[in-house]
Amino acid sequence: MGTTREITLSDLDDISRGAAILGTGGGGDPYIGRLLATAALREHGPVPLVDLGELEPGAAVLPVAMMGAPTVMVEKLPSVDQIGLAATTLATYLGRELTHVACAEAGGVNSLIPVAAAAQLGLPLVDADGMGRAFPEIQMVLPTLYGIRATPMAIADEKGNRGVLDTVDNHWAERLARSATIDMGCSAMISTYAMTGAQARDSLVPGTLSLCAELGALVRSARAGFRDPVDAVVARLGGRRLFTGKVTDVVRRTVTGFARGEATLAGMDGDTGAELVLRFQNEHLVAERDGTTVAAVPDLVCTLDRESGEAVTTESLRYGQRLTVIAAPADPRWHSPEGLALAGPAYFGYEVAR
Amino acid sequence: MGTTREITLSDLDDISRGAAILGTGGGGDPYIGRLLATAALREHGPVPLVDLGELEPGAAVLPVAMMGAPTVMVEKLPSVDQIGLAATTLATYLGRELTHVACAEAGGVNSLIPVAAAAQLGLPLVDADGMGRAFPEIQMVLPTLYGIRATPMAIADEKGNRGVLDTVDNHWAERLARSATIDMGCSAMISTYAMTGAQARDSLVPGTLSLCAELGALVRSARAGFRDPVDAVVARLGGRRLFTGKVTDVVRRTVTGFARGEATLAGMDGDTGAELVLRFQNEHLVAERDGTTVAAVPDLVCTLDRESGEAVTTESLRYGQRLTVIAAPADPRWHSPEGLALAGPAYFGYEVAR
Repeated sequence: MGTTREITLSDLDDISRGAAILGTGGGGDPYIGRLLATAALREHGPVPLVDLGELEPGAAVLPVAMMGAPTVMVEKLPSVDQIGLAATTLATYLGRELTHVACAEAGGVNSLIPVAAAAQLGLPLVDADGMGRAFPEIQMVLPTLYGIRATPMAIADEKGNRGVLDTVDNHWAERLARSATIDMGCSAMISTYAMTGAQARDSLVPGTLSLCAELGALVRSARAGFRDPVDAVVARLGGRRLFTGKVTDVVRRTVTGFARGEATLAGMDGDTGAELVLRFQNEHLVAERDGTTVAAVPDLVCTLDRESGEAVTTESLRYGQRLTVIAAPADPRWHSPEGLALAGPAYFGYEVAR
Repeated sequence: MGTTREITLSDLDDISRGAAILGTGGGGDPYIGRLLATAALREHGPVPLVDLGELEPGAAVLPVAMMGAPTVMVEKLPSVDQIGLAATTLATYLGRELTHVACAEAGGVNSLIPVAAAAQLGLPLVDADGMGRAFPEIQMVLPTLYGIRATPMAIADEKGNRGVLDTVDNHWAERLARSATIDMGCSAMISTYAMTGAQARDSLVPGTLSLCAELGALVRSARAGFRDPVDAVVARLGGRRLFTGKVTDVVRRTVTGFARGEATLAGMDGDTGAELVLRFQNEHLVAERDGTTVAAVPDLVCTLDRESGEAVTTESLRYGQRLTVIAAPADPRWHSPEGLALAGPAYFGYEVAR
């Protein structure tokens, strides 16, 4: 059972490109994610990739991620040491040997940090993640719907400060870890949702890293073959084009530990004369066309360069960029009443008729 | 060697009364401290009190304290469970058996919380503290001057949330623990500066609990004998009277996790016509008579009821109170250059000619 696969240096371009698309504007800059994973694979060699279905029920799976404002992460890079520190701090606290590393979310940094962590720790990586996309807050993972606790969790910064949190629920984990992240300079490394193999098989989204690699390859080969890379992404995700336009305004504030703001696009091509507003908290939350919401969390709203199909993260949005905005369906579990309560529009303060 | 002493229910009145004096306006309300310790002694019996000099060098000493704004502590009482939770969380993290509990500071709550913790944990209490008074921030203890680390430290709230911090220095411990305290509702239980018996003997202030009990008894017996209790306190502490007056104004804000503010007193008795301003951050920091600083940290500035000699904490200051303000010398180590850098007037933003 189980084909042996591994992530090598030559896979990182496609994975980071595809991960940034699933990051829906958040999840970190793919260039930084690629740099970190490249450094780790150069030092430690390839990372074995294990299918979710192959996990032994008793496996000890540890998701790792970067927490904070992506606006800060592009200026304050995580150190390679820091990546391992959160994981080993938690393993020591739990008094357990880890068997696998996993991704908490998909994103340009957060799909690649686990690759670097797995390489550094000498562990295999699970081909899965906790969301099937990126979301801004700790409790917003499918494992929360399965009653899996975010804590004990560990948090570490590049200076060597670290902490372990053990909270009464996952919302308290978010609250305490967010304050620590802000103190640590608005970005920190976390390891959270330590779980068994059985819990991982139930609760994670299977195949996310493979999907990242596939999306990245689709964009690359469409470009090489002079086809529209956005079409390739939309087709693969079963999504739809929402809008094509030029960024005319970006308001961005790094507050309460997040990159919050909105971007306005003036329509081009078939959307000339129309306007699209994107509202984001690290990730895109809602897209409003001429005042009407046309897509919202938990579904994916992704901003892609109109020509190259490369994801544009919310911290990289700039006046004059030509973007195509697409929507794509989330893992169906996000549309359950519990999923919507956790990460639907109302949680973020939006009223959306569905 | 060593006389066997213990703290019983009948000692708590004097200890809390004296501790509130050494708390220099902070350290918590003595009524609350007495309630907590009474509940713990009723349930678990008396607590053995051990002289600092009797500690074996290899003893494992754990100071415990309440952290936060005293303005909040009078409304949100710590739970008895919470007292033990921080201590046991840290002991588990350290993987060590504790042998003794200690006081981080002197104060109406913070001298009594360790009594309750020792009773609950079934451990003896060390007759000592980390300051010889109360100070508002975690790094402000004499052990910092001896290179003893505040972390690993544990923090816990009454809801059951807890965390362990392990930081690169004691200022980072303060910063991260303060944010967690604010999230936890502005008051939390901590256990910090875990140290060996040898370290405790070097760095703690000996005899603080005995001094609290003695001060409390002096005030009580002066009152019973129709003598001035303030005189008795001033004489015992080698201090001086600064001012007697009526509170005419109090400005108090609970911000950044502290009770900050100032109180103005209009002179009475020999001070008629003069004005005293007290500036505080949980504890009194400076006393200014008609614009001139007449006492400042690290020395003790204590506000006592003019008649009864009872300490009045900064969160209890009210218009119309008649107070006598006294100053008393701090442990001489606080006047070293390192001590002044840690908790002298300049750290708090005051320029004081010395």
